[in-house]
Amino acid sequence: MPSVAVFGGAGYTGALAARLLLAHPSFELRWVTARSDVGRRLDDLYPHHRVPLTLEELDLDRHADVDAAVVAYPHGAAAPLVADLRERGVRLVDLSADFRLRDAMIYGAWYREHEAPDLLDEAVYGLPELYRERIRDAGIVANPGCYPTATLLALAPLARAGLIGDVVVDAKSGVSGAGRAATEQTHFVTVDENVRPYGVPRHRHTPEIEQELAALGADVRITFTAHLLPLDQGELVSCYVTPKEDGVRLSLDELEGLYSRAFVSEPFIELTSEPPGVRDVRETNICRISVHRDERTGRVIVFSVIDNLWKGAASQAVQNLNLMFGLNEGEGIS
Amino acid sequence: MPSVAVFGGAGYTGALAARLLLAHPSFELRWVTARSDVGRRLDDLYPHHRVPLTLEELDLDRHADVDAAVVAYPHGAAAPLVADLRERGVRLVDLSADFRLRDAMIYGAWYREHEAPDLLDEAVYGLPELYRERIRDAGIVANPGCYPTATLLALAPLARAGLIGDVVVDAKSGVSGAGRAATEQTHFVTVDENVRPYGVPRHRHTPEIEQELAALGADVRITFTAHLLPLDQGELVSCYVTPKEDGVRLSLDELEGLYSRAFVSEPFIELTSEPPGVRDVRETNICRISVHRDERTGRVIVFSVIDNLWKGAASQAVQNLNLMFGLNEGEGIS
Amino acid sequence: MPSVAVFGGAGYTGALAARLLLAHPSFELRWVTARSDVGRRLDDLYPHHRVPLTLEELDLDRHADVDAAVVAYPHGAAAPLVADLRERGVRLVDLSADFRLRDAMIYGAWYREHEAPDLLDEAVYGLPELYRERIRDAGIVANPGCYPTATLLALAPLARAGLIGDVVVDAKSGVSGAGRAATEQTHFVTVDENVRPYGVPRHRHTPEIEQELAALGADVRITFTAHLLPLDQGELVSCYVTPKEDGVRLSLDELEGLYSRAFVSEPFIELTSEPPGVRDVRETNICRISVHRDERTGRVIVFSVIDNLWKGAASQAVQNLNLMFGLNEGEGIS
Amino acid sequence: MPSVAVFGGAGYTGALAARLLLAHPSFELRWVTARSDVGRRLDDLYPHHRVPLTLEELDLDRHADVDAAVVAYPHGAAAPLVADLRERGVRLVDLSADFRLRDAMIYGAWYREHEAPDLLDEAVYGLPELYRERIRDAGIVANPGCYPTATLLALAPLARAGLIGDVVVDAKSGVSGAGRAATEQTHFVTVDENVRPYGVPRHRHTPEIEQELAALGADVRITFTAHLLPLDQGELVSCYVTPKEDGVRLSLDELEGLYSRAFVSEPFIELTSEPPGVRDVRETNICRISVHRDERTGRVIVFSVIDNLWKGAASQAVQNLNLMFGLNEGEGIS
Repeated sequence: MPSVAVFGGAGYTGALAARLLLAHPSFELRWVTARSDVGRRLDDLYPHHRVPLTLEELDLDRHADVDAAVVAYPHGAAAPLVADLRERGVRLVDLSADFRLRDAMIYGAWYREHEAPDLLDEAVYGLPELYRERIRDAGIVANPGCYPTATLLALAPLARAGLIGDVVVDAKSGVSGAGRAATEQTHFVTVDENVRPYGVPRHRHTPEIEQELAALGADVRITFTAHLLPLDQGELVSCYVTPKEDGVRLSLDELEGLYSRAFVSEPFIELTSEPPGVRDVRETNICRISVHRDERTGRVIVFSVIDNLWKGAASQAVQNLNLMFGLNEGEGIS
Repeated sequence: MPSVAVFGGAGYTGALAARLLLAHPSFELRWVTARSDVGRRLDDLYPHHRVPLTLEELDLDRHADVDAAVVAYPHGAAAPLVADLRERGVRLVDLSADFRLRDAMIYGAWYREHEAPDLLDEAVYGLPELYRERIRDAGIVANPGCYPTATLLALAPLARAGLIGDVVVDAKSGVSGAGRAATEQTHFVTVDENVRPYGVPRHRHTPEIEQELAALGADVRITFTAHLLPLDQGELVSCYVTPKEDGVRLSLDELEGLYSRAFVSEPFIELTSEPPGVRDVRETNICRISVHRDERTGRVIVFSVIDNLWKGAASQAVQNLNLMFGLNEGEGIS
Repeated sequence: MPSVAVFGGAGYTGALAARLLLAHPSFELRWVTARSDVGRRLDDLYPHHRVPLTLEELDLDRHADVDAAVVAYPHGAAAPLVADLRERGVRLVDLSADFRLRDAMIYGAWYREHEAPDLLDEAVYGLPELYRERIRDAGIVANPGCYPTATLLALAPLARAGLIGDVVVDAKSGVSGAGRAATEQTHFVTVDENVRPYGVPRHRHTPEIEQELAALGADVRITFTAHLLPLDQGELVSCYVTPKEDGVRLSLDELEGLYSRAFVSEPFIELTSEPPGVRDVRETNICRISVHRDERTGRVIVFSVIDNLWKGAASQAVQNLNLMFGLNEGEGIS
Repeated sequence: MPSVAVFGGAGYTGALAARLLLAHPSFELRWVTARSDVGRRLDDLYPHHRVPLTLEELDLDRHADVDAAVVAYPHGAAAPLVADLRERGVRLVDLSADFRLRDAMIYGAWYREHEAPDLLDEAVYGLPELYRERIRDAGIVANPGCYPTATLLALAPLARAGLIGDVVVDAKSGVSGAGRAATEQTHFVTVDENVRPYGVPRHRHTPEIEQELAALGADVRITFTAHLLPLDQGELVSCYVTPKEDGVRLSLDELEGLYSRAFVSEPFIELTSEPPGVRDVRETNICRISVHRDERTGRVIVFSVIDNLWKGAASQAVQNLNLMFGLNEGEGIS
């Protein structure tokens, strides 16, 4: 059974990855390290995860002696650790943005100077529904951002069909997407009975979405805006697509057919005729999608919901690990 | 002091209108009628409003003996009552959609056959920031829908300047916007930890917004989508405007200047550089707006928040009544 | 593999029981009947449960041809169905209050006249931690109420040790405890930003708790009060125990020892030194308990949390079914 | 018009006091100082309060040149500032705990060593319903804690009548009661869908409640436990009173009569037969109370709700200032 370690287990996504891997029938979770709360029990920090392990301070000599890893470090901090782990032969899924953008210049423009640019070529973008085959052999899988996951799954069928002329993405997220840090922005009283946009007008997930849309055949500049909602887990993206000429004539039936064919064999995509709600996918690896046609304007509207901590992060990481180690894709996350 | 009655005081907006008018220094609230809960005390039904009146069954001979009225009946049911009240000379603000659309055919297409089409000409659209002068003399003021209120205030400066090429409006609302009726959709467990789109792809507020944008000079078909959020009061609209040729070159400074000039004397409009949150305007008659420029796509993004029960309904009705009776516009709602 | 049917699958607890039994490795879920929503798919009504079955109208000739059943009917309506099912030899867990009280007179005083009083002797109170052995052979298992489950587990060690002089139980529950019916009381706007007591001063769970405390050796009259909180699932009971003479001298260490010994082999009881929160047990069959000593007054304070839909209803029903059919107690609910 | 300053305006209660005093018709708000966020505009920090003032660093020579003050400093930090202000002749209301306990020893046992013990004699406990006359002439008014406010108003009629034998107080509070500090405990994700006890078994409000109950004639040791709820503002206390001999025979009618007589002239107390909810008093200075009798045990149950930021802090401070300066008690807070 392959052994696995979680690096950065004190945050929401790392801790959830630890829970999923501890219960996984085909991985042996050996370590959980952390950058804060070292020495604290994970089941004290997150009682509901019930992981009876102690958070350890990073010691690569001990902790890198594993077959696989999940890296849950912040953007920028992940790259050096990923480089160290690769040098020791560990295959890993990285939850940060550090290996998602293929171009170090673009990374530099939206984040900071990249610290391991020569590893970018080795990294595979970890959206299994798009890159399943390449993930199987990858050494570094760059787990997608939560918004890109929901958005790309919503738009992939249109992009591949060459139908996307222009896109506005209005995204809504629960507070866990902002992470565990206690700030004025995550204080209960700030969020409760509130909704507000953030990251306007330059949200960092924009270039990631554009890169992958381009890879699918849609070379567009998108408008992407995020909003913070008073709920803990869950993310909805509302995509407003102005179709290219060919798309304008598509009927709702044809659109639904396009989506059905695109996702017919996908174990974690659900199509629905009614707009989905984030409750429908809470604590699952599922992305639920509905497609609509605004007859009056010719626009195509696509709604897509995920649990940002699950399909948007930790359970998608496990889905990727399953593929990397030749296991059933849904093991431990169904 | 003009006397006033509230017709339909058992619902959220009628009850709030009663509260505001009871405390109003220049109106005398004489009656509150209702279609349900007749005989029940309003301060039993809504303790926090503290209106010590009993809901009465409609008796026009008694209740129409007033100078002014707020009609808070459902769409369709309002028109006949409005006709009756006008016949008796009562000047009124109608909270329903029945007199918002100037064209009975369009009303028929989105609602039902209109029951008092000859009164449509008499009605003034009750958005004071747009029609202040005409409201002063009106017999019927059609109080705008909550979404149109927030959307039109967000877009008016751009529309008047002839800059709007195309618009996508993504609206988010708290549950009180769905009214007091207890349904599967308003059950706490359905809404809590959830967000979902509704009224897709044909929300009834669409023609109202388009009618008024056209009156402002923007003859566009909009895409309008609403989402239900887990909060009680408050509404945010996110407007994504593709500008006409001239608008593409506008800088953020020029945009902010346009908005400042448009609203410089408006007592209930606040401009802000940071995106507003609905908490900022809770239980006020204020609309708070921010305008942004997406440099990468040339789009103009406008956010606008109101309290759907206040500026989106009851306090805006009082603002209209103030204008109709020559009072200070902010009396009783500041 | 024993076959099982859920009767009354349109409500929250019946639907969850259907989900748990569908995924259960050792039961075959054959039917889900309902009193409302007949013909509707369960995965349309509750998408997150993902049960691809259609709710059927009751037809005992078809639906009673099973080995086991979960009855999720309202109080009063359950008794006749339970009688029918027993006549046909089906062993069942009843989620209603109909077979919890051993005395038909007491049932009559708190609910209504009992319709199957001769079956009361056959029923076993389905709290596995108290009646594990008797449940194994039972034909009718009366699943405990949610509040009694949390309260009895909190107080059992003290009751058995003869230490309880007097008890005040202050209970707090999420809205799902009030069921799926859409009412003024379950409307989002009524519950949100609110907390209020209900069922004062005579909550129906009182005699059930007293009956079982007496069986454990504590013959006391309790004060039990429930409060409705703005959350969906979860229940906390705060128990304030005035100990009998002997208990007054117990140290915190001795109290904790008493609880540790009482629950040492229990798979679904967690003891904690910090007061538990309902999030800690969300969507689990676990009851989490902490015991404290108020040195100043000599009182013993016990906090206990469960998920009202799981350990308070559906997953406890599966725990009981597991026992009744000789399976591992935690199968399908761990 | 008396001038007033708020010291410590960056926190929730100080900022609300500034809002109420800015709008107050008979006070002139001159300064708002703060210990953090100096130089920041209050209407930037708390947009909904709309106070267009800048938070200033404390400079007693400038800021103490006022007639009145509200001190909103943390426990311990308030005492030295209060001493300074008194030396300069400023009459003040202190929101901290520093002058609530009359005995410096008890203060030391529950908080820390007192830094201005000789001022304790001068301080009046600022619950107007109990000490109205003494507040009028006071130099220092110690504004009560939020829990003591709700609890003492709930119990005062019973205490004065000599009926209290024993009391358990189970208190529930929204998150604003924990203040503005961003911590793991106030993070949205920690609080949402949760309820948990805190400050067990020694909550600091206990001696304050006992001191004032004793002053009312009830010399009891109470059990007081607080719980954190997923809501922003509002507090409910559920008081379980075991009456002394005489009280056991009191009927519900007699109890309700006792409460009616006790509060008949109180402008901010509401009695209700149904248990109150915190929504009923949101953003008001009102305390709403219901009294019940548990026939089976003889216990008297009293529920009491306030808004912790208003009657539990800032609006009660204004109520006290009104009394101190000979104004109408409800000015600026009705």
